[in-house]
Parts: sequence; C-alpha cells; structure tokens
Amino acid sequence: MSGKDKTYNGIFISFEGIDGCGKTTQSRALQEYFRSKGREAVLTLEPGGTLIGTRIREVLLQPEHKEMSPVTELLLYNAARAQHIAEKILPELKKGTVVITDRFTDSTTAYQGYGRGMDLSLINSINDIATNGIKPDLTILLDLDPEAGLGRNKSVNKVDRFELEALAFHQKVRKGFLEIAGMERERFELIDASLPVGEVSKKIAGMVNNRYGV
Amino acid sequence: MSGKDKTYNGIFISFEGIDGCGKTTQSRALQEYFRSKGREAVLTLEPGGTLIGTRIREVLLQPEHKEMSPVTELLLYNAARAQHIAEKILPELKKGTVVITDRFTDSTTAYQGYGRGMDLSLINSINDIATNGIKPDLTILLDLDPEAGLGRNKSVNKVDRFELEALAFHQKVRKGFLEIAGMERERFELIDASLPVGEVSKKIAGMVNNRYGV
Repeated sequence: MSGKDKTYNGIFISFEGIDGCGKTTQSRALQEYFRSKGREAVLTLEPGGTLIGTRIREVLLQPEHKEMSPVTELLLYNAARAQHIAEKILPELKKGTVVITDRFTDSTTAYQGYGRGMDLSLINSINDIATNGIKPDLTILLDLDPEAGLGRNKSVNKVDRFELEALAFHQKVRKGFLEIAGMERERFELIDASLPVGEVSKKIAGMVNNRYGV
Repeated sequence: MSGKDKTYNGIFISFEGIDGCGKTTQSRALQEYFRSKGREAVLTLEPGGTLIGTRIREVLLQPEHKEMSPVTELLLYNAARAQHIAEKILPELKKGTVVITDRFTDSTTAYQGYGRGMDLSLINSINDIATNGIKPDLTILLDLDPEAGLGRNKSVNKVDRFELEALAFHQKVRKGFLEIAGMERERFELIDASLPVGEVSKKIAGMVNNRYGV
C-alpha cells in the first residue's frame, strides 16, 4: 500500500516471475524465515487465495477455455484479486501479519500487457479498481530465462493454458517484469533465480533482514 | 451499438427488468415472432451465453459465495459479458441475425449501482471496457412491482443469492432501471409487465413491427 494512507501494521510481500522461476519454493522459504524469527506470516497466491478465487482460477486455467477473450481474462484475474484483498490480504495485514503472495498485479501487467499486448493503461486502471490502491510493500522478482523456467515445470508435469503458449511469449513476459521493476525501484528487489535454491533463499532472507530488521 | 460505427446488419435487443418480470418468456416469444416473419433470431442470456460465461455464472450464483465483494461481482459479470460479446453476440450480429439477450449492461448498472450503491461511473467504465462500446439497438424494460416479481419466481422454486436479498433492494433496482430508461429514451421501450403474458407479447411485437418493419 502506498505509504501515505497505510492502514495496517503487517508487511505485504509479493513474489513475481515467469512460470517455473521458483516462486512457490521461495515464498515458502520466506514464510519459514519470518516464523523462525517469531513473526506471524501467511502464504497465499493468485489467482486463488480464497474459495471464490479458486473457483475463478479453475475457469481461467481450463484447457477447454482456449477461446477466452483477452478482456475476459483480464477481468477474471482482477475479480479474483478483488476478493483476495477484501477477504484475506487486508484483514491479515490489519492483524499485523506478514502476507506473502505468489503473484499479484505485476503478473497481470506482465502476462496480459507485455505478453499479450493489451493496452497497459487499461490494465493499470482495472488493477487499481481491483486493489483499491493497495500495493505490495516489497516485490521480489525472481528473474529467470524462460527456457529454464519451462523446463522446470515440465519436470513436475504441470499443464495449463499458459504452458501451451510459445516460448516467445514468455520472453516478452520476462522483459515486461524487468521493465516494471525498472519503473518502481523502491518496491522491487531483483533476484537471479538461476542460482541454486538455497542460495536464492539466503539472498532473499538477507535482503528482508536489511529492509525490515527481521 | 452506437450508430456511428455500427459494423453489423443484425438487430441487437436486450430484455431488462427485475427477477420474475417475465424476461425469459417474453424473449422467447419475441424470438418466435421474428422467426414467424422469416427472420433469423437467436436467444441468449447474461450472465452466461457461452461456456465460459456459464462457468462464471456458477461462481456468481453459488449461495456459499455470500462473502463475495461488490468489486469481485462487478468484474465477474463483466468478464462473462466480454466473452459473450466476443464469442457470440458480435459474430451473430455480423451474420445479420437478430440477437435477443435476457439481461445486458443495464442489469449491472441497476443491480450493482442502484441496488448495492456502487459508484455509477466505475460501473459505466467497466461496462464500456467489457462491451467495447457495443450497445443494444433496442432495450425492452419489463417494468413490474418487486413484490409481484418475487412472487412469480418463488412459484417456480428458483433460489439464488439475489433471491435471498430483501424486497427493499429490488425496489431500488426497479427504480434504477426506470432512471436508466429515462436517460436513454431512444434505446428503451417501457412495457407494463403486470399485464397478462399474451398481452405483453402483443405489445412487444407491435412495437418491434413499428421500429423495424418486421
């Protein structure tokens, strides 16, 4: 959330990056880190994070829904997000909890905007409506070459609509994430996700310790 | 669609009104009327009208989803609508077909805006994004007192989230429909839905004959 009207004591952290960059593993590791320091931390994800969000996610990821229009997709992601914030993220932050989310608004901008070429100002205005202006205090971008990312996911046999898209698309998404990070240097921390998992976790823990003294 | 950039030969007609006002019956009767005159006519509905829209409708109407935030609801209705237009309404209109839809954008404005008190300009801008500016050529508002409307639906044993809402809410929705109709007199035709079914159908057929010579 923008500092000026922050109404909570929690810390809001998002993980971003292309499929297979290690967001799930690293967000779990960061939750463990906070807990080991005696700080309450919850893990959540987009799209999903709530019962309604999970149902919306099912609609989004059905392979039979290949005909989905880009605007439909944009509105569905943001519908899930609005629910996520109202029902889960904001109540936890108000309790003083650390909330760690696997994807947030930047994924929409990177995938729908940079990846699919939708108008960025349209995406930004819908993101703003859905979030009611709430932004992560910290966004950790796990940067990885798309070929490496796709390779990792194939090994765990995950298949959804995005997995069926071309590598060129994921290259555009990666570029998008890097551009967004370049525009909001205060909020973003860029991490090289090609490093060994343990090393990535260590870098993240050190950075969080620097930022928040945790 | 606004006349200036109309790109199709079909006629786009929406039915609007509170639950139980007879939209389903009357939209079927109007489809039959067009067909009896040798004119191709398809019937569709919101939320729904497509496979993806039907899935979104399930998320919207689940009684267990009572916790749904108003913004989530607004975005879901418009996600279904964007898909409806891209996949069904526009392709049919371009073929020269008459498209009759049971509910469209005015339902969102009346229910979420007038009924739930959401900001009308927010609703209008999301409606515009979802429709890409496409508007019905004719909107038939079946006006009915909410007590009569709820009574009818109870008799066919329909139960969804909206059925659980108070009568006062439906009064606000009715008032909303009437206000919207007052602002767009060219597009709207107001029909007294408390009249016998056959009489309502006759009035609609006469009015359509006047407008389109069908």
